[in-house]
Amino acid sequence: MNGAEAVVASLRACGVEVFFANPGTSEMHLVAALDAEPGARAVPCLFEGVATGAADGYGRMAGRPAATLLHLGPGLGNGLANLHNARRAATPLVNLVGDHATHHKPLDAPLESDIDSAAGTVSGWVRRCRDVRTAGADAAAAVSAATAGRGRVATLVLPADVSWSPGAAAAGAPPVSRPTTSPSADAVAGNAVPDGPVAEVAAALRGGGPAALLLGGPALREPSLREAARVAAACGARLLCETFPARLERGAGLPAVERLAYLPEGALAQLRGVRHLVLVGARSPVSFFAYPRTPGRLVPEDCQVYDLTGPDSDVRGTREALAHLADRLPDVQGAPAAPDPAESSPPTGPLTGETVAAAVGALLPEGAVVVDEANTSGLWLPAATAGAPRHDWLCLTGGAIGQGLPLAVGAALACPGRPVVCLEADGSAMFTPQALWTMAREGLDVTVVVYANSSYAILEMEYDRLIAPSGTTTGEQGCGPARRNLLDLSRPALDWAGLARSMGVPAARATTAEEFTAEFARALAEPGPHLVEARVPALFGPPSRTGAPSTPETPSTPSVR
Amino acid sequence: MNGAEAVVASLRACGVEVFFANPGTSEMHLVAALDAEPGARAVPCLFEGVATGAADGYGRMAGRPAATLLHLGPGLGNGLANLHNARRAATPLVNLVGDHATHHKPLDAPLESDIDSAAGTVSGWVRRCRDVRTAGADAAAAVSAATAGRGRVATLVLPADVSWSPGAAAAGAPPVSRPTTSPSADAVAGNAVPDGPVAEVAAALRGGGPAALLLGGPALREPSLREAARVAAACGARLLCETFPARLERGAGLPAVERLAYLPEGALAQLRGVRHLVLVGARSPVSFFAYPRTPGRLVPEDCQVYDLTGPDSDVRGTREALAHLADRLPDVQGAPAAPDPAESSPPTGPLTGETVAAAVGALLPEGAVVVDEANTSGLWLPAATAGAPRHDWLCLTGGAIGQGLPLAVGAALACPGRPVVCLEADGSAMFTPQALWTMAREGLDVTVVVYANSSYAILEMEYDRLIAPSGTTTGEQGCGPARRNLLDLSRPALDWAGLARSMGVPAARATTAEEFTAEFARALAEPGPHLVEARVPALFGPPSRTGAPSTPETPSTPSVR
Repeated sequence: MNGAEAVVASLRACGVEVFFANPGTSEMHLVAALDAEPGARAVPCLFEGVATGAADGYGRMAGRPAATLLHLGPGLGNGLANLHNARRAATPLVNLVGDHATHHKPLDAPLESDIDSAAGTVSGWVRRCRDVRTAGADAAAAVSAATAGRGRVATLVLPADVSWSPGAAAAGAPPVSRPTTSPSADAVAGNAVPDGPVAEVAAALRGGGPAALLLGGPALREPSLREAARVAAACGARLLCETFPARLERGAGLPAVERLAYLPEGALAQLRGVRHLVLVGARSPVSFFAYPRTPGRLVPEDCQVYDLTGPDSDVRGTREALAHLADRLPDVQGAPAAPDPAESSPPTGPLTGETVAAAVGALLPEGAVVVDEANTSGLWLPAATAGAPRHDWLCLTGGAIGQGLPLAVGAALACPGRPVVCLEADGSAMFTPQALWTMAREGLDVTVVVYANSSYAILEMEYDRLIAPSGTTTGEQGCGPARRNLLDLSRPALDWAGLARSMGVPAARATTAEEFTAEFARALAEPGPHLVEARVPALFGPPSRTGAPSTPETPSTPSVR
Repeated sequence: MNGAEAVVASLRACGVEVFFANPGTSEMHLVAALDAEPGARAVPCLFEGVATGAADGYGRMAGRPAATLLHLGPGLGNGLANLHNARRAATPLVNLVGDHATHHKPLDAPLESDIDSAAGTVSGWVRRCRDVRTAGADAAAAVSAATAGRGRVATLVLPADVSWSPGAAAAGAPPVSRPTTSPSADAVAGNAVPDGPVAEVAAALRGGGPAALLLGGPALREPSLREAARVAAACGARLLCETFPARLERGAGLPAVERLAYLPEGALAQLRGVRHLVLVGARSPVSFFAYPRTPGRLVPEDCQVYDLTGPDSDVRGTREALAHLADRLPDVQGAPAAPDPAESSPPTGPLTGETVAAAVGALLPEGAVVVDEANTSGLWLPAATAGAPRHDWLCLTGGAIGQGLPLAVGAALACPGRPVVCLEADGSAMFTPQALWTMAREGLDVTVVVYANSSYAILEMEYDRLIAPSGTTTGEQGCGPARRNLLDLSRPALDWAGLARSMGVPAARATTAEEFTAEFARALAEPGPHLVEARVPALFGPPSRTGAPSTPETPSTPSVR
């Protein structure tokens, strides 16, 4: 077999089923190899950012990697932002990048560029395949790297001559541990949890003083959440959650966690008074952005920080560490802090972020996968959906907007039996609208809600936070032509329903809460993709001509972002 | 002033007028600085690939740089593909990338990434501003680097704390030579052309034997074209042109040049028998992609290659070198080889790439700027437009598709009095459709033609070239499920007219040559942006069920790509 066939066969043998692809000439042998491999599913993406974001969504929900298929340096470049998000999510992902033939590279042909350097900025593992005889083993090694620990982006660069040359051999699945586990493996792996942190943390929690567990990554899956709730019940510790979790299991029957606020002022208020902060799959909290007069590190000065599991603990190891911790604390027979069951009814009146959230909370179906890139418009979503039927909540982990629609594509392919609800800010959705076409092509059961507030509202807020207080010259009461041009999306307003239909996705527009509820319900009920354009006011905006903020009720501390 | 104000003021002082921007929180002080700077034009782009491609188009047509404004590593990543194209075009471009505050970077906040490494892959110059006191000088140095020689991408990374800190000073224009020149500078700079290559080339051309000049970059502007035509008339040399020129001046009254073919077989045929190949602003030709049984270097073995000007000669230096060469050859009083005047009449009948080209050739207005990302559908364009009124032709220089629509945005802003015609393949246009919104926002006079063939037709051709001859297993006569899924854009078909309207661009669909001619004429006649969706058959396609190619008339050597 040739190198391309060995790579595809090896990835298949290691459990990779789906390839999110936008190939070019240098990847044609990989396309042919996919043609020849039964069971390989090639999903077309009209832009590489869709491919990488979809692979992220797939990996988060499947717990094992999908592969991408990208065309040289520019294809990798187009996929870079969502690979950055995948890296921050610790998603297992095999990033397959074709390159010119080895002998062609010194000629510096038009598409030649430094793939390896660009790949290094987003990958936990990068390898360039240099010999057709190792192509299969290199592919297996990529899966091994992608699935080690919590998971990472593993980039394999495959030159065209390695793809087309004969003499390759497929490699099987490497003997590595996977994030998922079996009961028999549990017993063995229990020894892997070092007792040190557990004993130290248990002693601290028994010693009293306000304590909080900051849960992140694998600690936000059900097994860990239940153990964390035991710990909380035993010692009164609060259960906090990182601001933008990759995958949070939540809803009726599951212990509730409180997400750290996006703005540092909010997170500092949440952490005030905490004396013991136990990190479980999360990192010590820092401000998302720097501001001139706000600290970057958010832990109170007199707070002791413990890391229970280290940065690379997987789902199994994290649950075990929490169980060991709970076992060392008093056994409290209290029920875990499950949220109240939903009592919400569909909202009425004007359509706002708040009424959209109420409708989502009222109608969210059992087992939904919620992709949240709602930004400022999504402020009310966590509270409104806390008591909804069980669901997974997937966030923008790396701050590179344009993640939501692709993530929904991947989640839907990973979970064919589950409804996917994608809650999208309009500014963010415009970074990767091509994902809508893939939803239509693949017939994915995704309900997209676009919050059409015609604004980069978060930047309107940040502009006021950063510029207005300092008295910097901005002209016209803090609203000069650049701000008006760069943060406003209303001239012309984007017709999201029309845009979706142009790519084959049925769509409707809602301007009242009643309309939204009806359209959202219809989209959920019908199979296949749908888009509902929710015309909502922006939460933040430029000062009006009189110099006062245009939004009368500005929450002082947005709790989500 | 603060660092952001110094950077903006310095860029303005060095002649930068337009900022193609998609800022984020870390760039809010730059937005405020743009607000405070009269004469700075901030152009909003809904995706960074639009910003970088627009800056490329602006720089090609204005001959001086626009600036981008990008948000951290992911923003740079999204702009990377079109920066790659700008690098290949040698476009002067100041790529301004915001970063976290210096003290925030060690905290590894979610958006932290290695900006410098990614920037290095596309930039001829990268600098990180480390001190507010040098911010103004750093910005001036970026302009200086961007405009040196032919031009290059100069990336300046500006941390947020440098932006917001006081103590900065604006810097003026540095004393560097610019690509454009004045008559007085000409006389002085004549000495800069080394006589060695000129004398050697003149001797070779006088010595006889089939010769060709391969023109590229600055040699494709009118002054050089006229001197090259003198050389050709004097010694019978052919005038060839690089395959994808950044900016080719052509049309009625200008010397015609023959573009090298995209496929190596075609270029090899064009170069067969040439004994003296003189590079003028072009590089020694190589194959765009590697193929198993085709050479990468396209120069015949017994051909001597000369480089008249070196790789970094600007418009002035290139013209002078050609003039010096012509002066050393016999003075032939023949007219330059201008193409025949246009005799075309609007086409009738089915709409195809050929009839679209005929309509474009018949209707192209005087002074048009043509952006060509038509790919396979554009095969007939060079011949059909050779005798059209004078125009500039801008190509996809780096092979990173998704360049055309953004390039048209930048060209229109650089040339407000000239009509821009953007000829787009549907597959390529889907990489950066957000550019349509910027056209609407800015009211740009761009006529977009989308060749809607619902196919990655060039990959259909390449698949057959690469896979079918080698007998590799592909299943179903060379058309398995992956090929059918990944190269076909017809399920669902993209509604380009609807997509354009959703972003505020008036649009129409044409299915016959008559309809296309009418809609194209109307779009040219009306101010502001328009899109015409031209539904054309794909030139290449998968084998039919009987195993025969689906396209009956496959040209053996596409002359464009």
